[in-house]
Amino acid sequence: MRTLSDEVAKHLTKPVTIEGWLHKKRLMGGLAFINVRDRRGLVQVVVQDKEEVEKLRGLQIGTVLSVTGTAVEEPRAPGGAELHDPELTVLMPVTDEPPIEIDKPLSHKSEHLETLFDNRVIGLRNLQEQAIFKTKAAVTASLRDYFKTHEFTEIHTPKLLAEATEGGAEVFQLDYFGKTATLAQSAQFYKQIMVGVFERVYEIGSTYRAEPSATTRHMSEFLTVDGELGFITFEELLNIVGGLLIHVVNDTWKSSEKYFKSLNVPKAALPEKPEDIPRITITEIHEMFLKATKEDHTAEDDLAPAEEKWICEWAKKNKGSDAVFVTGWSAKSKTFKFYHKASADNPEIAERADLLFRGVETTTLSMRQNNYETLVAQLKAMGGNPDNPGYAAYLSAFKYGMPAHGGFGLGLERLVEKLLNLNNVKEATLFPRDINRLAP
Amino acid sequence: MRTLSDEVAKHLTKPVTIEGWLHKKRLMGGLAFINVRDRRGLVQVVVQDKEEVEKLRGLQIGTVLSVTGTAVEEPRAPGGAELHDPELTVLMPVTDEPPIEIDKPLSHKSEHLETLFDNRVIGLRNLQEQAIFKTKAAVTASLRDYFKTHEFTEIHTPKLLAEATEGGAEVFQLDYFGKTATLAQSAQFYKQIMVGVFERVYEIGSTYRAEPSATTRHMSEFLTVDGELGFITFEELLNIVGGLLIHVVNDTWKSSEKYFKSLNVPKAALPEKPEDIPRITITEIHEMFLKATKEDHTAEDDLAPAEEKWICEWAKKNKGSDAVFVTGWSAKSKTFKFYHKASADNPEIAERADLLFRGVETTTLSMRQNNYETLVAQLKAMGGNPDNPGYAAYLSAFKYGMPAHGGFGLGLERLVEKLLNLNNVKEATLFPRDINRLAP
Repeated sequence: MRTLSDEVAKHLTKPVTIEGWLHKKRLMGGLAFINVRDRRGLVQVVVQDKEEVEKLRGLQIGTVLSVTGTAVEEPRAPGGAELHDPELTVLMPVTDEPPIEIDKPLSHKSEHLETLFDNRVIGLRNLQEQAIFKTKAAVTASLRDYFKTHEFTEIHTPKLLAEATEGGAEVFQLDYFGKTATLAQSAQFYKQIMVGVFERVYEIGSTYRAEPSATTRHMSEFLTVDGELGFITFEELLNIVGGLLIHVVNDTWKSSEKYFKSLNVPKAALPEKPEDIPRITITEIHEMFLKATKEDHTAEDDLAPAEEKWICEWAKKNKGSDAVFVTGWSAKSKTFKFYHKASADNPEIAERADLLFRGVETTTLSMRQNNYETLVAQLKAMGGNPDNPGYAAYLSAFKYGMPAHGGFGLGLERLVEKLLNLNNVKEATLFPRDINRLAP
Repeated sequence: MRTLSDEVAKHLTKPVTIEGWLHKKRLMGGLAFINVRDRRGLVQVVVQDKEEVEKLRGLQIGTVLSVTGTAVEEPRAPGGAELHDPELTVLMPVTDEPPIEIDKPLSHKSEHLETLFDNRVIGLRNLQEQAIFKTKAAVTASLRDYFKTHEFTEIHTPKLLAEATEGGAEVFQLDYFGKTATLAQSAQFYKQIMVGVFERVYEIGSTYRAEPSATTRHMSEFLTVDGELGFITFEELLNIVGGLLIHVVNDTWKSSEKYFKSLNVPKAALPEKPEDIPRITITEIHEMFLKATKEDHTAEDDLAPAEEKWICEWAKKNKGSDAVFVTGWSAKSKTFKFYHKASADNPEIAERADLLFRGVETTTLSMRQNNYETLVAQLKAMGGNPDNPGYAAYLSAFKYGMPAHGGFGLGLERLVEKLLNLNNVKEATLFPRDINRLAP
């Protein structure tokens, strides 16, 4: 009967059998200390018997073991107990030394990232790497929990499309039974269509961008969290998105504090209520930044990365918030997409915001144009052709009745990166894909 | 302040405002009855005022409305209440008649399926269609719930791969920055790799098959539920998979009984404990089927579709179970894949089973070969080349220590199809993709 690592302490003075991987090995004179890893963590085993120590000498890290020993209290050991007088049984031997050391934190410095990813299969067995993906799983669960509470229906939309409409460039194309298909760059059209069905929908799904850039922010395959809701106002949308971030931060801290701590990451600072997340217009940020740094971006329609970083630091210091809503986006610049909606009060301004978190944009949200004629007019004005078959299904949803609605998109790996203070989205991806990497 | 459809009955005799889509309209003399649809269901509205009836005459189905009226008890109305003396406000007009009627069940007969899918964007607004996808969302949630309870970590593995290894044929290829990439046909290798990290992992992710067949069972894009566990026996694996099906059936019935009932689908019959799901060998089924039908498949390594159907009917009648485990698969035929494991007791037999449910195979499960040398030998014996870079990452996981493990794959749409007694996996897919269909 197997005992899991965190339950050894429940069996003090009794014989216990654990199963797992040889994770660490220290030989000290005639003594040996080993750590055995299972799905819940580590068990320390003290080996004194000469024969067993000899047996250990030949065992490589990664060897799959069964260990039967006596559970002994030891406050310094993981879980507060260790095994003594063990009998080791090799369940599956390992003959070669692993290509990467897994019993200490792996370097995530930019000059070592390629080594990290080349050796990903074994490197992920490291507990600090595991902590990233345990947290990612917790973030995903907490997002779904929020969506469920707020009555979003989960949907799955196709990633194989007839043609690219949004974007156009940076699309992967493939041969589809003699026709050309593209990989979805976004679930934008489908999630809006589905508002006409379920009113509130979400999807956590794969997104593809043929990004010809090798940066810390770009991957060719990543996960997007898409939400879309009908019968709402821009104000309500801001609060839904702000509430989502607050929920994820609190909930993952609750479920995964030990992983945050193993990575030395503090809990993000956020107001209790989404209404209290600072809302600052892009014009105000340009002016504040100019005043503070003498760097002038006031003529630009978008924020410079330095401004995003600066305003987040400002908000952290002055408002106690790691998050900032950037509002006041122009409805007359190319940041305004054909499906966006201008404010009824001020047609110069889009009902759109970016949610910055720890220095970068993590989420874009906007109200959508829901009037069929206006939508078609906006599409044409921006050079789109409503007769393009790629728009047909999307536009038909509006022709047959769409309520006021809005939504948001959020890069899952980007969010995990910022939650864990990583430097690169790829560190939050099991097997990242970019212009140079398609394996492992 | 908006009241949602199922809360109208809480405000009897009071004024209430609902918002939604005009879903149905019946004009009877000077009276009109309409149904307004929102995310929770329908509200019946009785219109008596002449002017309001006139206004209604010109409104198309799909019109987005706000309706303020008095809540009145009416046991025959959805939710037990209806609105009287309404004032109708059009929030978004619809001028054209919808291309498909949404206020009565849509035909799912095979000769009407293309019409169904051509008009999917609007057709999904039908409540019976919604019931399918509400149930699918509930199935997905209930799968995740089971995985969480059993300590599986959720993972996301790449769908863009350097090359196809499993299968080979039926792979979509694309240009990847000048190289060739393929779309993942399965998460098999990655989920096994991840057993080396988390011991128990699952993924619900997209799967791609360039299937040149237009059948009721084939799609080019679908969702697979993949689970994989370490430190288990074949017996434990059978019970994990059986337990999963039992949980999904019970849990979705609990959360979604109204959707099942709206589709006239009875709850599936299953034993309480996974150990009690009938286990029958493929040889026994061949013999039982021969005896019952005089049709002889005893020389075959696989079950014929007619046998799958027959044995499920037999198990339903004789064992009260809609599910059957088919065991006793040959380790010497081509149904044995290179990563499968033969039984230690009987090397002629694979540690593999198929889980049949309501007449078809829904899940395949097997123990995997976890000895590096044996795995390489099995790969070579089946014509694979271990030096193929597509195998490198996978094989390295075994080189550095893999425990006894096994897992299963389950087509999500197939499961929903069988749970809801549909005839075609595409009916359980929002926007299906097959050899002939890439839109909407």
